[in-house]
Amino acid sequence: MTKLSVRLSSFDLTKKTKYMAITTRKEDFSNWFQDVIKEADLACHSVVRGCMIFKPTGYALWESLQKILDKKIKETGHQNVYFPLLIPLSFFEKEAKHVEGFAKECAVVTHYRLEPDGKGGLEPAKDSKLAEPLVIRPTSEAIIGEAISSWIQSYKDLPVLINQWCNVMRWEMRTKMFLRTSEFLWQEGHTAHATREEAEEESLKMLEVYEDLAHNYLAIPVLKGEKTPAERFPGAVNTYTIETMMQDGKALQAGTSHFLGQNFSKAYDITYADKEQKMQHAWTTSWGVTTRLIGALIMTHSDDFGLVLPPKMAPDQVVIIPIVKKNQDKQEILGYCEALAASLRALTFNGEGIRVKVDASPKEPVDKFWDAVKKGIPVRLEIGPRDKEARQVSMSLRNKEAKDRTALPIEELLKTIPSTLENIQQDLYNKALNFRLENSKHIESVGELETLFSKDENYAGGFAYAFFDPECESQPDVEAKLKELKVTTRCLPFENKNEEGLCIFTKKLVKGKVIFAKSY
Amino acid sequence: MTKLSVRLSSFDLTKKTKYMAITTRKEDFSNWFQDVIKEADLACHSVVRGCMIFKPTGYALWESLQKILDKKIKETGHQNVYFPLLIPLSFFEKEAKHVEGFAKECAVVTHYRLEPDGKGGLEPAKDSKLAEPLVIRPTSEAIIGEAISSWIQSYKDLPVLINQWCNVMRWEMRTKMFLRTSEFLWQEGHTAHATREEAEEESLKMLEVYEDLAHNYLAIPVLKGEKTPAERFPGAVNTYTIETMMQDGKALQAGTSHFLGQNFSKAYDITYADKEQKMQHAWTTSWGVTTRLIGALIMTHSDDFGLVLPPKMAPDQVVIIPIVKKNQDKQEILGYCEALAASLRALTFNGEGIRVKVDASPKEPVDKFWDAVKKGIPVRLEIGPRDKEARQVSMSLRNKEAKDRTALPIEELLKTIPSTLENIQQDLYNKALNFRLENSKHIESVGELETLFSKDENYAGGFAYAFFDPECESQPDVEAKLKELKVTTRCLPFENKNEEGLCIFTKKLVKGKVIFAKSY
Repeated sequence: MTKLSVRLSSFDLTKKTKYMAITTRKEDFSNWFQDVIKEADLACHSVVRGCMIFKPTGYALWESLQKILDKKIKETGHQNVYFPLLIPLSFFEKEAKHVEGFAKECAVVTHYRLEPDGKGGLEPAKDSKLAEPLVIRPTSEAIIGEAISSWIQSYKDLPVLINQWCNVMRWEMRTKMFLRTSEFLWQEGHTAHATREEAEEESLKMLEVYEDLAHNYLAIPVLKGEKTPAERFPGAVNTYTIETMMQDGKALQAGTSHFLGQNFSKAYDITYADKEQKMQHAWTTSWGVTTRLIGALIMTHSDDFGLVLPPKMAPDQVVIIPIVKKNQDKQEILGYCEALAASLRALTFNGEGIRVKVDASPKEPVDKFWDAVKKGIPVRLEIGPRDKEARQVSMSLRNKEAKDRTALPIEELLKTIPSTLENIQQDLYNKALNFRLENSKHIESVGELETLFSKDENYAGGFAYAFFDPECESQPDVEAKLKELKVTTRCLPFENKNEEGLCIFTKKLVKGKVIFAKSY
Repeated sequence: MTKLSVRLSSFDLTKKTKYMAITTRKEDFSNWFQDVIKEADLACHSVVRGCMIFKPTGYALWESLQKILDKKIKETGHQNVYFPLLIPLSFFEKEAKHVEGFAKECAVVTHYRLEPDGKGGLEPAKDSKLAEPLVIRPTSEAIIGEAISSWIQSYKDLPVLINQWCNVMRWEMRTKMFLRTSEFLWQEGHTAHATREEAEEESLKMLEVYEDLAHNYLAIPVLKGEKTPAERFPGAVNTYTIETMMQDGKALQAGTSHFLGQNFSKAYDITYADKEQKMQHAWTTSWGVTTRLIGALIMTHSDDFGLVLPPKMAPDQVVIIPIVKKNQDKQEILGYCEALAASLRALTFNGEGIRVKVDASPKEPVDKFWDAVKKGIPVRLEIGPRDKEARQVSMSLRNKEAKDRTALPIEELLKTIPSTLENIQQDLYNKALNFRLENSKHIESVGELETLFSKDENYAGGFAYAFFDPECESQPDVEAKLKELKVTTRCLPFENKNEEGLCIFTKKLVKGKVIFAKSY
């Protein structure tokens, strides 16, 4: 490979400003995020408060993720199901902590018919009022728990290992595209087991599946850990989480897996006859990841030029841009590009044919180039008449600077493209991991915590590791301090579980550190 | 292949009654349908009125269908998207006929929070009442129309070709599992075009995609046709349909594609600047199939022994049942069965590896055999120690009688299994087509209509083709007669479009026949 001078380039990439409507991360991280979404045409706001519209490019990312994760969920022995959207209020009420945690954010169906309001419009028909209101599922423990109680009679019916892909709704006050929307898409796994050990093992196994998804596909480094009691899922005995850091130094909870103990099996009467014919309560788990992971994907890798996608997630992994100056060359160059695309598609990356797009739209090459940049396509290949003659392409990579183009013989391209994609995938992971490591500190006092988290609004301070007694989290002074700093405990990371030291608040000797951070 | 005497069978299949909890179709078709679903463990009722639970086996059928259809939808140039579940009432009101058609069956969200009711329970919080109620989508023309109006500026932005897989809700009074439920799953395609011709072509193209799905995958013969004005989708200029006949002689609408003209583009202001910079209203279409197709699949092929599945749709295409009498043989036979399964999985049917299940559960072989029958697995292979020694299997097929077993050398099995599956697929289609043809009559008078549809409740009378003037359908006398016979017009089939004759009601000369039938 040799670096090319601008000679080869058919347009001047230094005129970037013309094409860039994106706020820089440094200027305003939140606006940058919105701009990246807009310029990549991933999604837009809807007229319904807090609900977004997934446009084709954005939904394709969710489909990529679904395909990968669905396979893993099935490989670990789970089967997909579908339960009703609406939950009768009385079922929802059965687990006290669960209802307490979710009641504040439930959309409630009260009527089942509309009728003319006498003013030319419509209103809910008064005589269609439901005797019992129905709650749009904020999560499905209630309706699934109620149903599987009748599926299970004996220990032979266990374990129950099910999952569903669906929409859920939580009436959020402050929403942000992908990261926090009133309606969102997710998968929710629900399992029931004969023993405590088996259920705990299940919840940890699924946490590892999530870690695998994040590390090896989304290229997002995550930390596995346990939530403190104050941050647990309502009704869980233990909540495990994968936590990650965004480029503004904020934490993002990327997936959770809950060991529910016997709380839900007692609330919904999920019992089984054991080998001695004695009735026992089952042990249950639940676990889920959501469309928020697409938000994490955007925020982890993208730059001031727009979206950056790890190749395994990219709907298009390679774009070919024909450079045609004379109209008479058009058909010839297009045909040549299509032939190259076919050769590339016949090659394998990550167990599948490489996904190649030829941008044959009537746009100018320079617009196609920046379009590919903004959409995060990992590899760009420009081909003009001179390249065709020389049997070479001008290749540039989304994880490098836009102006870095390499002239590459076609044979070389076909030989190296799978490893090029693999390298980009790995490079993005490494960059993100380095960022997290550089923005993580081990602190030893509340003073250090204050210093770290009283900074500039556009940088949230990263992760602060500290010894901490989870019991003190609900103490008024601790609560007040964390609230003042706008900081929460993210998790007790597994990798620091066995370290011992003094809690920065109570000075009590404790085992295990906690991560403090501002969060999404 | 040679027919085997009962010598080979390790259990007596004449004792069927012991295993069969299924009502026969002749006794009670409706109960038979419920029993088939229950015995195949496809689904169950939920506590929520009119909403069903898709159990793993039932949901797997929907996943089979989704995989096939999603590929076809993408191959025809459409992209998947996701729009919000909730539609503001005012948006829903904009197309007069549309709202008239759906208002009677809408679930309405009026509150967004719950609070203690003072009696130990919860109720919708009074201060969380929404200023504008939100309707759970019964279909998404309203919210999609509103959104895409801002996506489209010029003719260059057309066509818009999008689709979503989601849940919808229509508050049905009489529900039936799979066929008519308050919440159901579907895909809804929505497109916008610059010209009338292009939009009409689109709606017909998607009807053909549905026909292909039905004929070549579900093995369900369907008739393509046009709905009469009285049976059109609310707001459509023209509704195209695929209609099929169930084994009780009732019609079932299996999918529809609507040419919406400019009705929705006028209601939602979907306009574009044409090449002369003049503003024009776009032409739109919508089209959908639902989980009702799984109901059609069950009702078309199944018999008094339970579910029958066409191989292309079957989650398990082949089941291997180890016959172990002595415990010492167990591991050896199981290993042998797993090895055979691996060889079969390496073979291709319908472009994919053959899906094989080894039933290694602790159940008795005879129970496994009937379990496979009730679940509709196309091919059953029984293997005992003597079969292993002779390198043969005892094969029986779900589309033949259960007792018809064939001893087949392993080599022969591996050579013929793809064509065996293909033959089953074709046989099921042929049987269903013959049934429809045998139960279709061309009639020439209202008297014949009466004779046909005043019969025994358990047989609905099949299809009656007759010349008919669609204009007279809303005439009081015609309406009354059809209501009395519990008959509706199903469609004007394309294949009878050019025939001419006298309307059986008005005696007017008309072009094209209509199909009358009782329907689901």
